[in-house]
Amino acid sequence: MERMKICVLKGDGIGPEIVDQALKVLKAVCDASGIKLELDFALLGGIAIDQTGEPLPQQTIDKCKASDAVLLGAVGGEKWDHLPARPEKGLLGIRSALGLYANLRPAKIFPALKTASPLKDSVIGEGVDILVVRELTGGIYFGEHNRKTENGMEIGYDVMQYSTAEVERIAKTAFELARKRNHKVTSVDKANVLEVSRLWRETVIRVHEEYRDVELNHMYVDNASMQLVRNPAQFDVIVTGNMFGDILSDEASMISGSIGMLASASLGVGSLGLYEPIHGSAPDIAGKGIANPLATVLSVAMMLRYTFSLEKEADAIEKAVELSLNHARTPDIKSEDLPVYCTEQMGDFLAKTV
Amino acid sequence: MERMKICVLKGDGIGPEIVDQALKVLKAVCDASGIKLELDFALLGGIAIDQTGEPLPQQTIDKCKASDAVLLGAVGGEKWDHLPARPEKGLLGIRSALGLYANLRPAKIFPALKTASPLKDSVIGEGVDILVVRELTGGIYFGEHNRKTENGMEIGYDVMQYSTAEVERIAKTAFELARKRNHKVTSVDKANVLEVSRLWRETVIRVHEEYRDVELNHMYVDNASMQLVRNPAQFDVIVTGNMFGDILSDEASMISGSIGMLASASLGVGSLGLYEPIHGSAPDIAGKGIANPLATVLSVAMMLRYTFSLEKEADAIEKAVELSLNHARTPDIKSEDLPVYCTEQMGDFLAKTV
Ligand SMILES: CC(C)[C@H](C(=O)O)[C@@H](O)C(=O)O
Ligand SMILES: CC(C)[C@H](C(=O)O)[C@@H](O)C(=O)O
Repeated sequence: MERMKICVLKGDGIGPEIVDQALKVLKAVCDASGIKLELDFALLGGIAIDQTGEPLPQQTIDKCKASDAVLLGAVGGEKWDHLPARPEKGLLGIRSALGLYANLRPAKIFPALKTASPLKDSVIGEGVDILVVRELTGGIYFGEHNRKTENGMEIGYDVMQYSTAEVERIAKTAFELARKRNHKVTSVDKANVLEVSRLWRETVIRVHEEYRDVELNHMYVDNASMQLVRNPAQFDVIVTGNMFGDILSDEASMISGSIGMLASASLGVGSLGLYEPIHGSAPDIAGKGIANPLATVLSVAMMLRYTFSLEKEADAIEKAVELSLNHARTPDIKSEDLPVYCTEQMGDFLAKTV
Repeated sequence: MERMKICVLKGDGIGPEIVDQALKVLKAVCDASGIKLELDFALLGGIAIDQTGEPLPQQTIDKCKASDAVLLGAVGGEKWDHLPARPEKGLLGIRSALGLYANLRPAKIFPALKTASPLKDSVIGEGVDILVVRELTGGIYFGEHNRKTENGMEIGYDVMQYSTAEVERIAKTAFELARKRNHKVTSVDKANVLEVSRLWRETVIRVHEEYRDVELNHMYVDNASMQLVRNPAQFDVIVTGNMFGDILSDEASMISGSIGMLASASLGVGSLGLYEPIHGSAPDIAGKGIANPLATVLSVAMMLRYTFSLEKEADAIEKAVELSLNHARTPDIKSEDLPVYCTEQMGDFLAKTV
């Protein structure tokens, strides 16, 4: 690896400040490893609406496609909520435009933050370390949708659909990832009610034939939402569709108690990936210099791992983040016996530590 | 009230044994209040498949329609899971045939069982007392669904749809119920992505104009699944569609830690309602006489309240159940300092106590 080109989408709210820290850390890692880091910047979300009228300008798509990976801060805010061209459309649009069909959402409990989980210690048991693999460019998010009038009555509808090819590729992603973890995949669907889920389940079972070393079980989505609360330690990799994945990955994150700490990767066919923290743009604290940059920094670690296969460098960042938890904290996770750091201080500490 | 006619669907697994106890309690209440209780029995689920070939025979529909209310045990079991005519189809079919569009799913923590919640005491805070109002005869459960082939590729699809009329009536139900509780409704949708959710939200807002005394807020389903774990005390009534309601009502139940204790009501236009425990048919313990009948008994309380407006009688049953928790327990919720009762003993105790 001699050079990497990253397209940076700082986005809205706290996006710019947390991304700046993550870039500091990335630069430090690249310097240490002799990698030439090239950055490009583009607009997404509310700021793109403000400056260009659309949440996802074509230029942004072009710049992302011309890069090895995309680093995103966060998008959205009440300011744009009333508009038809909302920041979320930018998010959905870029996933689709870049073909990022696999959303990886790790939810784990950091030992130093164990007390932050809303679950009892007895429920957490051996700990939570779940990887939700959510299909991201299909399902009801991208099916036909519209309004129609029947017998004078207005009807709104959205079609949830999956093709075997779509299920196959996400199932493969899940099985491959499980091989690097605890060799267990739980496929979540609603096959007792939905046709799309029956196709999903059949296809996952078929793909599984090539992954006999991985244990596969199936769970209905209502049960999965209960099991996450009842016994999260039973899960390793969860694979599911776009809508169910949206709900369950957020539930799993909350269970970890460390929502300000969780990163995500959205991957496609090649090595191009989009990396972002799972938390929102938090407009209420934007610009105050108190936002927690750790989830964005951990997104950079995922980027190094999944787009660039730089395991060692990814590990170094993750280690630095764990270290930081015993050294100083941003206000959102502050602890009585540790100093409080502002966003910048945290970035500086991590850049120095990696 | 001089007589009531109940259609009893014992169903599969532990269904028969728990329903028998609930009927004991109902008889005791009717005797005490001078109400003539007429019972009719019909088949639903696996047992109906075994005896008639279909999960929901026409006769069952007829008998239910000819009754004031329906009491259901539980349906399903692995034995029938491979069949195309599965027990669940009976459940969906009867909801639809009887027009039971409003599913009321209370999730609360019983003081005597507080320690059973998987959530920390600090998270539970003032306690959990949520009523999920789930739309039950529309949405993706009943939309068009099929398989098709496009470019040689198989596709499965289901249509999630709602008409304004469907949303209006369930919204009204939710607002009316909130008036008898804490005057707060949270409407859950995914309006930032789904067209059906935008129609849902607009309609709920319009219906709300006639319920200004009730506080209304809107929440995306992914956020709702987090908030239930983060701070369940913020919720009073949650109103949502069939699919989201399936997921969130189960999550809310699990949070209460008392899944063997929770009842449900499914209501339609008139006073006819179907009442059932939320737990499953538990084939593994069927016939052993150890099943917990409390959720079914509490379903009878809901029946007295919602179909017959017999508040006093409903209260008496609920009080008897709370009393039982300090008197004896079935094995599933056993407590060191209380005797263990079998299913029958619990029924006898409650029938004597009401
Ligand atoms: C903002 C919204 C459209 C988005 C989604 O539902 O996919 C978000 O919830 C997420 O999970 O990234
Ligand atoms: C068995 C299944 C079809 C059913 C549903 O999804 O409605 C069940 O989960 C429920 O909630 O009553």
